[in-house]
Amino acid sequence: MADGTYVEQEFVRDTNYIADRILADPDPSKAPGGDAPVGAQEWPVEPGRYRLAVARACPWANRAIIVRRLLGLEDVISMGVAGPTHDADSWTFDKDPDGVDPVLGIPRLKDAYEARWPGYPRGITVPAMVDVPTGAVVTNDFPSITEDLSTQWRPYHREGAPDLWPAEHLEEMAEVNRRVYTEVNNGVYRCGFAGTQQAYDEAYDRLFTALDWLEERLADRRYLVGDHLTEADVRLFTTLARFDAAYHGHFKCNRSKLTEMPVLWAYARDLWTTPGFGDTTDVVDIKRHYYEVHRDINPTGVVPQGPELMGWLEPHGREALGGSPFGDGTPPGPPPEGERVPVAHNPTLGEDGMVRTR
Amino acid sequence: MADGTYVEQEFVRDTNYIADRILADPDPSKAPGGDAPVGAQEWPVEPGRYRLAVARACPWANRAIIVRRLLGLEDVISMGVAGPTHDADSWTFDKDPDGVDPVLGIPRLKDAYEARWPGYPRGITVPAMVDVPTGAVVTNDFPSITEDLSTQWRPYHREGAPDLWPAEHLEEMAEVNRRVYTEVNNGVYRCGFAGTQQAYDEAYDRLFTALDWLEERLADRRYLVGDHLTEADVRLFTTLARFDAAYHGHFKCNRSKLTEMPVLWAYARDLWTTPGFGDTTDVVDIKRHYYEVHRDINPTGVVPQGPELMGWLEPHGREALGGSPFGDGTPPGPPPEGERVPVAHNPTLGEDGMVRTR
Repeated sequence: MADGTYVEQEFVRDTNYIADRILADPDPSKAPGGDAPVGAQEWPVEPGRYRLAVARACPWANRAIIVRRLLGLEDVISMGVAGPTHDADSWTFDKDPDGVDPVLGIPRLKDAYEARWPGYPRGITVPAMVDVPTGAVVTNDFPSITEDLSTQWRPYHREGAPDLWPAEHLEEMAEVNRRVYTEVNNGVYRCGFAGTQQAYDEAYDRLFTALDWLEERLADRRYLVGDHLTEADVRLFTTLARFDAAYHGHFKCNRSKLTEMPVLWAYARDLWTTPGFGDTTDVVDIKRHYYEVHRDINPTGVVPQGPELMGWLEPHGREALGGSPFGDGTPPGPPPEGERVPVAHNPTLGEDGMVRTR
Repeated sequence: MADGTYVEQEFVRDTNYIADRILADPDPSKAPGGDAPVGAQEWPVEPGRYRLAVARACPWANRAIIVRRLLGLEDVISMGVAGPTHDADSWTFDKDPDGVDPVLGIPRLKDAYEARWPGYPRGITVPAMVDVPTGAVVTNDFPSITEDLSTQWRPYHREGAPDLWPAEHLEEMAEVNRRVYTEVNNGVYRCGFAGTQQAYDEAYDRLFTALDWLEERLADRRYLVGDHLTEADVRLFTTLARFDAAYHGHFKCNRSKLTEMPVLWAYARDLWTTPGFGDTTDVVDIKRHYYEVHRDINPTGVVPQGPELMGWLEPHGREALGGSPFGDGTPPGPPPEGERVPVAHNPTLGEDGMVRTR
């Protein structure tokens, strides 16, 4: 959900989240239910205890889906998947039988927010980590959710899992992440939700200035930071994967399509065909979400049929730049059966839920 | 203006026009003011008598602008240019000093319709031929306006003017024109104004089926019909010129951009760089019209900055297919000074109002 407010007609994202952490070594004085305020509590890493609530449509949730899969945490942290559209105040589990999440037993994600914070006053967002025993949201602070999956759950990572937060690159990655977040991940929303021509014009210039910077940065390096996949690539990917399908037309980010930015397009195709990326991307859910939910931008709710997607499988040639996605590690295998994106929702996939090789 | 109605949520263009003709040899029994009904009257060709009212934004008017320029009729039929946006019921001459057309002396094109038909009940459309002495609309029947410019005004064509209605190709051209009109010129509107998902889906399939047909037809022939420019090329061009700037995003015609259909894109670039085509295309007016007027599709009225336009000047390579735009004739020179599209509205133009050669 795109929660935010307007400051002089410029969209400003609400970043006031329930920022609890799930840590390998939590501070007992900040235990849940204790004296620490909600948002500053620390929960213990514990296999089977938490459920990751997501919607495949949402780029912030898509981050968490990718990271969980890259790290092989499927058996340790279960996942509940909401549908692409939601009612006025909550994502809903309309994909599940009877519209109820089978583990949490709730039809609306809002119920889990209310279980934590009765009368919760802000937007009901995904991703959210939910404490299964109490059915209460632990955290919806998306940047720390993925960071903690990488850094706090290490003992439970699959064999061969990549190190998405490599110690030797943390500083550089933080810098890249900051610019990608404010200028790109959020930049597309700033264009789409601009309330005036001037706010839009400024947002458009900021966005494409950043994309030009990325086009240059990625021209001679395969990944954003270092020689392997990192969280920085995950964060950029989720915006690129939605660019032509939603942001180009719906949000008027239309200097060019992604397909017309040669370096970024090859970089995005490289990631798309890497296990964990394209195979977690549900293009139908993405388009339905943006075009059906934002009636203030698209009053009819009609969802475009385009763009054509098979171009994602064109050879990207990025291997020539050196580097390797998983370094000394290995790619994840096919996603568990219950977690596969249907081919009807992403025609680049095969029956095993993996992106097809041409 | 996109006048029409909806039949089962499908947009159907109102084609009930004032279909008077201006002819070289009019039937005296159908003289204006006589017994023949409005819409079946015949007016005489007469240099200096008529004014062509247009808006550069409008594809139907753009046809007439192109044909008038290709034929060199500027000194014989003057032109009044309305602004890109209009109020609820009329195009307005807001580009002119004090907002009044200097020849007709009216601020709104509707005044010329009322002069012909008090209480005129249908849409106020461009192009319209106006009888200057009486200030009354003669015809707004856009298909016959351009046909008559070609076939009835021959003695006044410039030396070297092309024959846009070549006798040996009339049958084939009529067939092509019919399909281009229903499937492409109107097809984009059928997508954009679809009131339901089903109406849109059907419209999208029809449109891209036709574009695939054109992609194939134009693969080995430089022009739609015969070896030279004809009216058929003019009619297709005005939709292609607006495709990425308006129809792709605003009307959801987004299987691909024009830039991603290689044959049509090269064909369109060939025309764009031919005098009469790109130099009559006002991209700012086009975008402002679609995005500001259709508030039911774009409630904020924000106009996108994209797409980038310099790609229109990339070499098209279509000369290799043989054929030549003007056959034994010649291209028109620069447009008259008062009729040039400003460079700020079309960055591919030079100071003389012609498309720049790279």
